[in-house]
Amino acid sequence: TDDKVAKIGLFGVPFSKGQQRDGTEKGPGALRKGGLLKTLTSIGHDVLDYGDLPLDFSDDKEGQTGVAKNPKTVGHASKMIADKVSEVVKSGRTCLALGGDHSMAIGTIYGQHQVQPDQVVLWIDAHADINTPLTSGSGNMHGMPLSFLVKELDPYLPKIPGFEFVKPCLTAKDIAYIGLRDVDPGERYIIEKLGITAFSMQEVDKYGINEVMTRALKAIDPEGKRPIHLSFDVDSLDPSLAPSTGTPVLGGLSLREGLYIAEEVADTGRLSVIDVAEVNPSLGSEQDVETTVRNTIEFITKCFGNRRQGAYPPGYHIPLPT
Amino acid sequence: TDDKVAKIGLFGVPFSKGQQRDGTEKGPGALRKGGLLKTLTSIGHDVLDYGDLPLDFSDDKEGQTGVAKNPKTVGHASKMIADKVSEVVKSGRTCLALGGDHSMAIGTIYGQHQVQPDQVVLWIDAHADINTPLTSGSGNMHGMPLSFLVKELDPYLPKIPGFEFVKPCLTAKDIAYIGLRDVDPGERYIIEKLGITAFSMQEVDKYGINEVMTRALKAIDPEGKRPIHLSFDVDSLDPSLAPSTGTPVLGGLSLREGLYIAEEVADTGRLSVIDVAEVNPSLGSEQDVETTVRNTIEFITKCFGNRRQGAYPPGYHIPLPT
Amino acid sequence: TDDKVAKIGLFGVPFSKGQQRDGTEKGPGALRKGGLLKTLTSIGHDVLDYGDLPLDFSDDKEGQTGVAKNPKTVGHASKMIADKVSEVVKSGRTCLALGGDHSMAIGTIYGQHQVQPDQVVLWIDAHADINTPLTSGSGNMHGMPLSFLVKELDPYLPKIPGFEFVKPCLTAKDIAYIGLRDVDPGERYIIEKLGITAFSMQEVDKYGINEVMTRALKAIDPEGKRPIHLSFDVDSLDPSLAPSTGTPVLGGLSLREGLYIAEEVADTGRLSVIDVAEVNPSLGSEQDVETTVRNTIEFITKCFGNRRQGAYPPGYHIPLPT
Ligand SMILES: [Mn+2]
Ligand SMILES: [Mn+2]
Ligand SMILES: [Mn+2]
Ligand SMILES: [Mn+2]
Ligand SMILES: [Mn+2]
Ligand SMILES: [Mn+2]
Repeated sequence: TDDKVAKIGLFGVPFSKGQQRDGTEKGPGALRKGGLLKTLTSIGHDVLDYGDLPLDFSDDKEGQTGVAKNPKTVGHASKMIADKVSEVVKSGRTCLALGGDHSMAIGTIYGQHQVQPDQVVLWIDAHADINTPLTSGSGNMHGMPLSFLVKELDPYLPKIPGFEFVKPCLTAKDIAYIGLRDVDPGERYIIEKLGITAFSMQEVDKYGINEVMTRALKAIDPEGKRPIHLSFDVDSLDPSLAPSTGTPVLGGLSLREGLYIAEEVADTGRLSVIDVAEVNPSLGSEQDVETTVRNTIEFITKCFGNRRQGAYPPGYHIPLPT
Repeated sequence: TDDKVAKIGLFGVPFSKGQQRDGTEKGPGALRKGGLLKTLTSIGHDVLDYGDLPLDFSDDKEGQTGVAKNPKTVGHASKMIADKVSEVVKSGRTCLALGGDHSMAIGTIYGQHQVQPDQVVLWIDAHADINTPLTSGSGNMHGMPLSFLVKELDPYLPKIPGFEFVKPCLTAKDIAYIGLRDVDPGERYIIEKLGITAFSMQEVDKYGINEVMTRALKAIDPEGKRPIHLSFDVDSLDPSLAPSTGTPVLGGLSLREGLYIAEEVADTGRLSVIDVAEVNPSLGSEQDVETTVRNTIEFITKCFGNRRQGAYPPGYHIPLPT
Repeated sequence: TDDKVAKIGLFGVPFSKGQQRDGTEKGPGALRKGGLLKTLTSIGHDVLDYGDLPLDFSDDKEGQTGVAKNPKTVGHASKMIADKVSEVVKSGRTCLALGGDHSMAIGTIYGQHQVQPDQVVLWIDAHADINTPLTSGSGNMHGMPLSFLVKELDPYLPKIPGFEFVKPCLTAKDIAYIGLRDVDPGERYIIEKLGITAFSMQEVDKYGINEVMTRALKAIDPEGKRPIHLSFDVDSLDPSLAPSTGTPVLGGLSLREGLYIAEEVADTGRLSVIDVAEVNPSLGSEQDVETTVRNTIEFITKCFGNRRQGAYPPGYHIPLPT
């Protein structure tokens, strides 16, 4: 296996207004402090750091507006995120967006869409994040991002201030879920009605991660030609592996299953945008944060071809004694 | 998937005389305190709580009687348990018996037999619990329950005071084990000689939990028609998941495998009686008890159709904006 | 299943000069203190303890000699280890060598070769340990043992003082790896160029441990006739299961997968030599050491046929009541 050098463009999304707990705005900082950039460059990747987006809305007291919380703030952030993703993808680099809560994906997917309208989405999460503002019980927008993006849901979407700029850009068959285990009634109904490919933890247990990955990739892109958006919520991992997150759910992916997903996506050669969502360094002990950050970085490195079986640089040969 | 509402009749079996350690008599209380009823009702189930059986034999100093310990006490309890299970099953509710040590299963299986003589038994346990009083090394009756119930073992069973009322009601082919990893020589011999379907952890590793469940259900009920007795010993789970139990054994089921078993049994629509055995809140730290109770409750909820992929109520539709 | 009684000859390799951290020289003591012999004999095995080899080179300040660290010391130890393994294998006992760092395998494999030249090697490790002194970045010899033993690598091996007595005795097709996840570029190149059978954790995730074991055994011995050398590095297990080791790597084998490997090897009836390497009781907390030792002993017991499904002695029958 020849080693692959990736060209990566990364930026931080220090944002937490898509849910109620402070802390996800510190996600990018925690991943940086945990050595993400050093790790990626030490493997040999070409990393361009665009810094963090200026998303400090801490003084913003918008609160609930109708059926969603902080919609104008989330909309504002989404626009900035979308523009940045468009810029990075246009530049030819794989875009790595370090969240931040998962509402970030409205921006990252919509931004990619401006450059790569044939995108497909692999959503790794304990949650389906496809509540409409009207099916959501909480009004937290990190549980809604896909509802803003899926064309089939357009008739069900109320007008939400701040999102005038977003037009649905995915169809149900462009999306595959892996890791679901806490799905709201409305979300389950939407998944079935629209026929979205979904592998809950039950299917992961039933088929194994190998079969699940093969089926998921085949479902969203049978010909293997389209650019992949990998939306990774760290709560897809088991809470023992990613304890510092806002909505952990028992019985998640093992680290090995996470790495396997990352390796298989890397292996397609078509990974274009990665979201890393819901790292919350304000939750749990110092040890919990360290565990969460370490495993998240491990996942990210595998997204760029650093396979567990090892690799060597092009032209390598075994040195002979002199 | 339409959401299913289960009609559940539950009662506690505060009993520990089938083994040597105090504490399993507090199992029902720990599960109640851990929010079992609230969890079940909040999912929408119809739960009737029969309370705890009056099984306080703490002043009972019976001790060893021949080859078994506390046989009259265990026999007395078994009769009361059997009568209660008969009552609940007759009422048409799924019977949930919260133990208590695993000697409880003599009563729960025999009680179900009075109403559903075509019962089959799925026994989830690190142990086979099929020692006869003569093959048992310890004399602890929680390691013997199946020997009292299996017709083929009748010739090998000495007369034990307290069990005059029990007649063997199962044949070897009505039983399937999952999770075995600490099996006594006599038990292994019985399993092979009688041809009992048994999936030790080695077979779970070999075939995977999906294949194991398919084979187990097929083995005991090829036509898929018979009422299922699910006897769940929490020591089937890995000790890291159920530390507060008397005889933990390394290398147990993962929580996900446990939930998978529960979901598949629920999916048959024929689950009739559930034993929850060997929760011992007197063992381990407070955190250990919490872990054990939380995972046990998670298992129980999955027995009633609360699948990880989600569900919606009959007649559900996506709300439209006004 | 009839219970099998194994004839075991064990000895300690209190050695740590194949790497930089003190502590692996205490590995044999920790396994003994953890009850290894009592466990093996209580299952019924016939264990002959040859004691520990006199390998106290603590005053030895050899250091780096060219491209390897402590080569004369490691070479000296290797000769003593080889002679002892030859003696034990000749005696007809299964040889159990308790390390010690993994440089021990030069001696154990070479020693077995003197008696069983048709040996094959199953290498269970996070690492490939096949760096030549010239591909190694660290000069630590515990990362090189296989390079001294594989014929195809002979042209690439510089002369290393202390190893004049060793002649390569394996070919690439006699070796199979399981558990790899930290493989150096030179090692990966060697594995591919020589066509060594290698199952990294990615392949374990992809195929499952059952399929991996079947393929590994088939690859090194398609006819099932040759004596097996099982070289077990405890860092093959997940760091949560074997924390007290010098070079832990995230995402390792589960205990169940480890036990499965051991059971399948035992099942061949051809296990001849076992290395237990890299237990380092100087690393981690007391609890970490206990965990590491307990799981290692569990692995070892399964190497001798103590299957999880249970077993009974020859001629067993169920006792009848009198
Ligand atoms: Mn999410
Ligand atoms: Mn989530
Ligand atoms: Mn039991
Ligand atoms: Mn048990
Ligand atoms: Mn290693
Ligand atoms: Mn090694």
